[in-house]
Amino acid sequence: MGLSEFDLIDRFFRDVGRTRSDVVLGVGDDGAILRCPPGHELVMVSDTLVAGVHFPLDAPARSVGHRALAVNLSDIAAMGATPAWALLSLTLPEVHERWLTEFAGGFSRLARTHEVQLVGGDTTRGPLSLSVQVVGMVPPETALRRSTARPGDLLFVSGRVGEAAGGLALLQATLAPRESLNDSVRRSLIERFEFPQPRLALALKLRGVASAAMDISDGLLADAEKLARASGLRLRIDLERLPQSAALAESFLPATATNLMLTGGDDYELLFSVSRKYQDRLEPLISQGDITQIGECLPEMPEDPAHAGVELWREGARLRLSALGIERSGFDHFA
Amino acid sequence: MGLSEFDLIDRFFRDVGRTRSDVVLGVGDDGAILRCPPGHELVMVSDTLVAGVHFPLDAPARSVGHRALAVNLSDIAAMGATPAWALLSLTLPEVHERWLTEFAGGFSRLARTHEVQLVGGDTTRGPLSLSVQVVGMVPPETALRRSTARPGDLLFVSGRVGEAAGGLALLQATLAPRESLNDSVRRSLIERFEFPQPRLALALKLRGVASAAMDISDGLLADAEKLARASGLRLRIDLERLPQSAALAESFLPATATNLMLTGGDDYELLFSVSRKYQDRLEPLISQGDITQIGECLPEMPEDPAHAGVELWREGARLRLSALGIERSGFDHFA
Repeated sequence: MGLSEFDLIDRFFRDVGRTRSDVVLGVGDDGAILRCPPGHELVMVSDTLVAGVHFPLDAPARSVGHRALAVNLSDIAAMGATPAWALLSLTLPEVHERWLTEFAGGFSRLARTHEVQLVGGDTTRGPLSLSVQVVGMVPPETALRRSTARPGDLLFVSGRVGEAAGGLALLQATLAPRESLNDSVRRSLIERFEFPQPRLALALKLRGVASAAMDISDGLLADAEKLARASGLRLRIDLERLPQSAALAESFLPATATNLMLTGGDDYELLFSVSRKYQDRLEPLISQGDITQIGECLPEMPEDPAHAGVELWREGARLRLSALGIERSGFDHFA
Repeated sequence: MGLSEFDLIDRFFRDVGRTRSDVVLGVGDDGAILRCPPGHELVMVSDTLVAGVHFPLDAPARSVGHRALAVNLSDIAAMGATPAWALLSLTLPEVHERWLTEFAGGFSRLARTHEVQLVGGDTTRGPLSLSVQVVGMVPPETALRRSTARPGDLLFVSGRVGEAAGGLALLQATLAPRESLNDSVRRSLIERFEFPQPRLALALKLRGVASAAMDISDGLLADAEKLARASGLRLRIDLERLPQSAALAESFLPATATNLMLTGGDDYELLFSVSRKYQDRLEPLISQGDITQIGECLPEMPEDPAHAGVELWREGARLRLSALGIERSGFDHFA
C-alpha cells in the first residue's frame, strides 16, 4: 500500500479516544509526556491479543479494536481504578486501510466512552497481534488486589458468566446449539464475545467495600483458583447460586450451559470478595441483578497449606468437576 | 513443558530488575500499583520486537532480552527522561526453560543497571515477539521533543553510527567483510548489534541544552528526515563530519562503511539539535568524543513548505544519495 509506518500512525492513530488535559504530548514523538494526577497512585495493566488464539482470524476489525482495549480496561476495573492513557503496539502482516479504519474506530469508540486517550505505541510488520497497555489512577491505598480475600468473606460475580464463550462457540460452530435457537438470542451471545463491556462503573462502587477482586478472562473456575491461590484460602462456589443466563439456556442443553458458565472465558466480569459487615452496602446492586453472591471464602486446609483452591457445591453436596463432564477448569496458554 | 502461564511468570519474571521503593505492587495481580513521583511529569514509551524482523530467529536469548528493554530505554533517553518501570508482553511459540532463563537474565541485567523494575506484563502463545513499555520521569517542561529544533541550531549525534548494522551484516553474511577482518573487531561490531547501550547518562546532560532530540533506530538519514519533518525545517549533514568508526573501516570497504553510517539502524544513538548559544556547554562531551557535530538546522524552503528534509553535503557540495549507491534512506516496516 505504500503507506509508511509514520503515515499509518498519523492517519489512523493520532486522534483515538478522548483528548485529555493531563496529556502534555501524545502520539508522534519518541514517547508521550503525561501529567501525574496529584494525590493518586497509578495502576498499569497490559494485555496482548494474538489472531487465531484470542480471536478468530476473520473476526470483524471493529471487534478486534474494541476487545484489545476492553480486556485492559477490565484489568483496570479489577484493580478498582479509573483509566486514563493507553498505548497500542500493533503488529500487522500488511496494511489494509479498511481494516485499520474499522479497527481504530472500535478502539476509539470504547476509549471515548471511558475517557481514555491513546498516547503512543508502535506499528510493526509481522503476524497479526495487538498489545495494549492502560494506565489508570486510584486514590492511595484503595486499589483492589486479588491477594487480600479473607476467610468468611462472601464471594460475588458481576453480570452473567459463560455468555461470551457461548457466543464464540456459536461463531465457530464448536458446540451444537438447540434447534429452536433464534437469531436475536444468537446475536446477543456473539455480541458478548465481540464487544465485552469492562465493569468500570461497578469497580468504583467496590472501592472500600470489596476485600479482593479480579476480572474473569480465562473462566470462572480457573480465575477463582487464581484468587484462592493469591489469597491463600479456599473458595466455595454454589452451583445453584450462579447467575442464570436466559440466552445460554435458550441456546444450549443444560449441561453445556453449566460447563460454559464454569469454564468459559472472555466475559470480563468481575469476581470479588466482600466482608459480611459490608454486605448491606451491596443490596442495591444485588437487587438490580448487577452482582450475585455465588459462594464464600473458607480457610485453607491447615494440614495442607499448598492446597488452596476452589470447591464446587450443589444442593449442599460437594461436586467433582468430572461429574459435570469438565476436564479442565479454564484456559491456560501453556498448560 | 507443563508450566502454566502463572508458573512461567512466577518463575522467570517475578524479580526482574531493581526493586524500587515507588512500586507498591509489582508482577502478579491484574495490574501494578505505582506511586507518582511528586513534581515530575511521566514519559511513556513502547516498542515491539518481532523475531525475523527485528532480530534473527536464532539470536541469543540474552541479546533478545537486552534489546527488548534497550530499545525502550533509548526512547526514554531521547525524551530526556529517567526510566523507572517496565512492562513486558512476551509472545512465545513454546516454553523453553533455558531460553527463558537467558532472556530474563539479559532483560534483568540491563534493568538493574538503569534502576528499572519490571512491574507487569503478560505471556501468550504465538509467534515469537516482545512488546515492552517503559515509564520514566522528567521534571516538568524539560522533556526533549523531536519537533522543537530551530533554524540555526547545530546538529549532533552521539557515539558512532552504522556499527550495529555492520555487526548484523557480519552475523547474517549479507555484506562481504574485508579479508583482513580480525575476530575481535568482528565481535565488537556484533556486540553493538546484540547489546546496544541506551544513552541515558548523556540524555540527562542534554536537558535544558538540546533544542530537540530523538534516538536513531532506523538509520541516521531516515531518522534525521523524521526530525526535520517534525520540526518543519531542513537538516544539513556534512559527510566528512560523521564520527569515524575504526571498526567499520577495518571491516568494510569505504563505500560500504559510509552506506552503513548513513542508513544502518539499530545503534540507538541520539540525534539532537543545540542552539549555538549553548555550544560551549557541550565542549567536554565533544572533546571526549561522546558526541559529534555533524551538521546544522536550516530554514525550510519558503516556496515549498512540505519539502522539509535532509541535505547531505561533502566538501562543500551537495550530494545525491544515488551518488553514494544508496537507494533508500533507512528502514520502514510498511514502505
